[in-house]
Amino acid sequence: MNFASDNSGPAHPKVWEALTRADQGYAMPYGNDPLSLSVADRLRALFDVPDAAVVLAATGTAANALALACLCPPWGRIYCHRQAHIEEDEGGAPEFFIGGGKLTLMDGAHGRFTAETLSRAIAETPNGIHSVPPAIVSLSNLSEAGTLWPLAEIAEVVGIAHRAGMAVHLDGARLSNAMVAGGYTPAELMRTGLDAVVFGGTKNGLPGVEAVILRDGTKQQELERRRKRGGHLLSKHRYLAAQMDAYLTHDLWRELAGAANDAAARLASAIGTEALIHPVEGNQIFCRLSRAAHQRLHAAGAQYYLIPEASLEGDAHQLLSARLVCNWATTQDQIDAFSALL
Amino acid sequence: MNFASDNSGPAHPKVWEALTRADQGYAMPYGNDPLSLSVADRLRALFDVPDAAVVLAATGTAANALALACLCPPWGRIYCHRQAHIEEDEGGAPEFFIGGGKLTLMDGAHGRFTAETLSRAIAETPNGIHSVPPAIVSLSNLSEAGTLWPLAEIAEVVGIAHRAGMAVHLDGARLSNAMVAGGYTPAELMRTGLDAVVFGGTKNGLPGVEAVILRDGTKQQELERRRKRGGHLLSKHRYLAAQMDAYLTHDLWRELAGAANDAAARLASAIGTEALIHPVEGNQIFCRLSRAAHQRLHAAGAQYYLIPEASLEGDAHQLLSARLVCNWATTQDQIDAFSALL
Amino acid sequence: MNFASDNSGPAHPKVWEALTRADQGYAMPYGNDPLSLSVADRLRALFDVPDAAVVLAATGTAANALALACLCPPWGRIYCHRQAHIEEDEGGAPEFFIGGGKLTLMDGAHGRFTAETLSRAIAETPNGIHSVPPAIVSLSNLSEAGTLWPLAEIAEVVGIAHRAGMAVHLDGARLSNAMVAGGYTPAELMRTGLDAVVFGGTKNGLPGVEAVILRDGTKQQELERRRKRGGHLLSKHRYLAAQMDAYLTHDLWRELAGAANDAAARLASAIGTEALIHPVEGNQIFCRLSRAAHQRLHAAGAQYYLIPEASLEGDAHQLLSARLVCNWATTQDQIDAFSALL
Amino acid sequence: MNFASDNSGPAHPKVWEALTRADQGYAMPYGNDPLSLSVADRLRALFDVPDAAVVLAATGTAANALALACLCPPWGRIYCHRQAHIEEDEGGAPEFFIGGGKLTLMDGAHGRFTAETLSRAIAETPNGIHSVPPAIVSLSNLSEAGTLWPLAEIAEVVGIAHRAGMAVHLDGARLSNAMVAGGYTPAELMRTGLDAVVFGGTKNGLPGVEAVILRDGTKQQELERRRKRGGHLLSKHRYLAAQMDAYLTHDLWRELAGAANDAAARLASAIGTEALIHPVEGNQIFCRLSRAAHQRLHAAGAQYYLIPEASLEGDAHQLLSARLVCNWATTQDQIDAFSALL
Repeated sequence: MNFASDNSGPAHPKVWEALTRADQGYAMPYGNDPLSLSVADRLRALFDVPDAAVVLAATGTAANALALACLCPPWGRIYCHRQAHIEEDEGGAPEFFIGGGKLTLMDGAHGRFTAETLSRAIAETPNGIHSVPPAIVSLSNLSEAGTLWPLAEIAEVVGIAHRAGMAVHLDGARLSNAMVAGGYTPAELMRTGLDAVVFGGTKNGLPGVEAVILRDGTKQQELERRRKRGGHLLSKHRYLAAQMDAYLTHDLWRELAGAANDAAARLASAIGTEALIHPVEGNQIFCRLSRAAHQRLHAAGAQYYLIPEASLEGDAHQLLSARLVCNWATTQDQIDAFSALL
Repeated sequence: MNFASDNSGPAHPKVWEALTRADQGYAMPYGNDPLSLSVADRLRALFDVPDAAVVLAATGTAANALALACLCPPWGRIYCHRQAHIEEDEGGAPEFFIGGGKLTLMDGAHGRFTAETLSRAIAETPNGIHSVPPAIVSLSNLSEAGTLWPLAEIAEVVGIAHRAGMAVHLDGARLSNAMVAGGYTPAELMRTGLDAVVFGGTKNGLPGVEAVILRDGTKQQELERRRKRGGHLLSKHRYLAAQMDAYLTHDLWRELAGAANDAAARLASAIGTEALIHPVEGNQIFCRLSRAAHQRLHAAGAQYYLIPEASLEGDAHQLLSARLVCNWATTQDQIDAFSALL
Repeated sequence: MNFASDNSGPAHPKVWEALTRADQGYAMPYGNDPLSLSVADRLRALFDVPDAAVVLAATGTAANALALACLCPPWGRIYCHRQAHIEEDEGGAPEFFIGGGKLTLMDGAHGRFTAETLSRAIAETPNGIHSVPPAIVSLSNLSEAGTLWPLAEIAEVVGIAHRAGMAVHLDGARLSNAMVAGGYTPAELMRTGLDAVVFGGTKNGLPGVEAVILRDGTKQQELERRRKRGGHLLSKHRYLAAQMDAYLTHDLWRELAGAANDAAARLASAIGTEALIHPVEGNQIFCRLSRAAHQRLHAAGAQYYLIPEASLEGDAHQLLSARLVCNWATTQDQIDAFSALL
Repeated sequence: MNFASDNSGPAHPKVWEALTRADQGYAMPYGNDPLSLSVADRLRALFDVPDAAVVLAATGTAANALALACLCPPWGRIYCHRQAHIEEDEGGAPEFFIGGGKLTLMDGAHGRFTAETLSRAIAETPNGIHSVPPAIVSLSNLSEAGTLWPLAEIAEVVGIAHRAGMAVHLDGARLSNAMVAGGYTPAELMRTGLDAVVFGGTKNGLPGVEAVILRDGTKQQELERRRKRGGHLLSKHRYLAAQMDAYLTHDLWRELAGAANDAAARLASAIGTEALIHPVEGNQIFCRLSRAAHQRLHAAGAQYYLIPEASLEGDAHQLLSARLVCNWATTQDQIDAFSALL
């Protein structure tokens, strides 16, 4: 019963098979092997951006920071949700890679901000040489609250940003879950006009690989230079490429995200709508548990995060907030066991 | 006949087995799994620095840059050999992670600099507020010329550096090869007084992992903060830990480096001493080949680098400079085939 | 009738005299002239921190950024008021000099935050490696709303910060005005435990000089290195020193700030308490004007800022928000003329 | 007898007059006063680059670093002479403002490098993603050896750089001395194709101001943003503008540089050609003195630098190397007194 994170589960067997295949014999290092070269083109085709700049990286933090640094000058401002991963969970990586930058935080229900909130935030930014000027809007899909951005809302954000001379970055650590849940394809997503997309694999069954996709293909060189100086160009790059290649083959990304989303839907159903803090639209569940339930679950070895952290001791009736995350390997047995303990 | 790089060969089967084992079930992410915690202590024990700050990273460039950034202020100067990897091959990563810094390049035969050269370089550095002051001496072992640093010479460098108020960093991308060749242990190496060591695995049979070891254990927090903001804290950290754990088990690092060094010795013997540019002390060979030999080898599919690059066409008698690298998987057949074509 | 800024008025004649005196003959450059050396000690004595690290800089932005960079690691977090100058008006200089950093913005009436707000902000900062950890609390005195920090409140902030392992920085662009208004001396101010103070002169009658004072004198070298690499070590440093020396002589800083504060009090009195947005505690006035009044004032050539900007055209009864700043040279005639037009 | 530096002497009276005039009454801060706006256009006209991006800064280090940062990506390489001010005397400011960067040092007689040396340095720079790629050539005119760059040689350097896709920066701390000595105008200088010029005033009789001129006028915004975040936008900017305005009026820059150059020529003549280390082409003299002469001069209060530093005690016949710098205020009496002591 491990629902702590989609980072906690095992990688998918097909990926290990691909890694084993890729390990045969010798290959050119630093991304010059055939698999590395072809997988970038597969990504361009999947997202229907044939000229895009594309690289792989081993972490989502690196992928986001590289994308942002290619779009944001050191004196630029990024608008994002108050709970955005780039704000809360990346240890200052965006500022490091950008060489400065400033994040302006927007509130919004369920991890998303509205077009109106964005417009107001831009309007309230002081003009002039003393201020840090607008450069980027960043959104996470799935959001940090586990919710989905509909295509129309993404397009609206892109429109506002572009009219204000800004680029739009999408943190897609759980983009597969979002696209499966939202019923849209990578190509349809890109048609909203997004400038940078991080297409995550690590949270969806890969050992560790994320793709950075920049619409502006003239930035390929800059993207690679930034990756190199960030220490993110792996010498044995075939092991990154093999993961991503397996992920794209027969839409494995879709299969795994679908399994995770389905598991979350079933778990949410067992928990009951009235206990949910945010709508469950992907593979994450934010819900309220009584401390008594938490004590039972904890005693049975269930793993998940309380946000904020809370003691096992105390009023048994008190409601605690929990985050539960399903992944491709979540079993019905786990869900049943959890439900039974509830 | 692939002698292009020790990055080109396959990873060792024992490492894949360890990865498969580590993949069973759920594990805490971000280095909080048992394997990640224990492998840091194994490294401390191996290098006999029980209080050292230790982290793993996926690339040597990241490992070097993290170590340097923990020891060098943004306005500090690093002394290294003119061909040092941190100068020539890391795309500016040291300057990026340090947030500035300046590398002062020293000449020296066979990839090493002498104590006298170092002392002179320090003495020639201007004093005062206008200059970038001395902070670090960095050496590579094996050097970029494939040569070995004897313990006594390392200790001499450390002595000079410490008397000048500087720390010493060792780039150990091929440190296993060096220690096997030099007949010294990690603990003996550390006893020279080194402040930072990067213990490489990627060039010696691992898919991709390097350890950063800082003698000053109070820097553990800083090292982890820098790794995180560099995007180098892998969520599924167990896959880094498993590689390093396998590497340490039954001294696999020693076995693999020994095999690579032995192969290089046999290949060097076939090439002949008179053709060698640098002494062969590890797993790298720098030698002269006639263009005619190069043409034959190339036609037979042999892979290696000419430094500088040279055309296949031209005077058949002209001597070209080549770099050949052996790895743990280099076979006697490959060596024999190469020798026969010579 | 120029109330646009205390940056807009002339420098005081005594300062020009001091500059002329300092210009006689030859002097060692880069702060090694006698005047530069003595003025640092005069500052240490005035603030009663005999071991403090002290440098001069030509701008407040530089002075703040240098102070913050000496106290905040590149991965550190700064807590400040939402309207702080370091957040709104320095074009990202703090992040540039820190090499990263992140500002957490606190709300609070009249440009100040309460101890409770600060405590809550600290408590709400996530722990752990993924977050940017607390490093500095920064306050402005006078605040950006023109209000004064009482000594007791500063001491309370320092206590909270120190208990949380943080340092405290005071942006003192208008510190002279604050100390005169609050009736406390520089030495009393430092006894609150502040770690870094910027003592401004530019807004109080000097052509352009600010002092950075760090309690921890071991940071003198770092502070000078950072100033040099920031391009802020003036070769003809005597011209900075002469300004500051004149400023300290016979407490000129106190005389000029007193004149500015008095002028503001008289102007505020003419405007009337009911129109004030913030209490007038120094030399800044934030007040509401009808558009009709604004039209009359504008026609008569009065200069001040409307915040936010507003058109001259429109409903004559609409109330607009204005900022009026007095300086040492503000005359009673200007005040009378303004009052008459109101 | 102060020949220590052209930074050591007084500022010219006309500049103080201009400052006094500028100090009358109120002026818009931050460069929005009429004088600040007009002086930028005067500079554009003087250098015949009507669309150029232009700002003023208070130090040469800031001016150089700002110019370089606008032309060099964080991962770029700068080629300069081994003794360049940006390498030896700016405390790492170029790397700080660039956010990385790497300086490749070229040797060359008398402070200049040849076209051949530059071409070879470029050719020897490794290609590929692992290397720091060429971005800028920087030259100093006058050079650090006090020598002059002829227009034809500058044009040759520009040609090589542009063909290699690089920009060219000219550090003109003593550009007035160079132009007077070389008999060319600012407009003729720019016609060589230079991309960035720093036009210094501080070493030539101003209290402290330098102009940054970037040929590419689209960089005006970036240049101003970088200046602001570097803390180099002075609020009372009229005091920078007034200095530069006086400098341009009736070609004061030319008059002062001519006086300094003439004084140096006379002093060099007194010293004698055979003692000169570098040709005297501007206002700097590098020469050999016996220790006996040095002892006499020192006893009489003469000030200048020995490079390297040397003791007053020792062999009286030993030749020491000295740098002597004249400025606009150097008198014939000083020269005569020095000559008499020789």
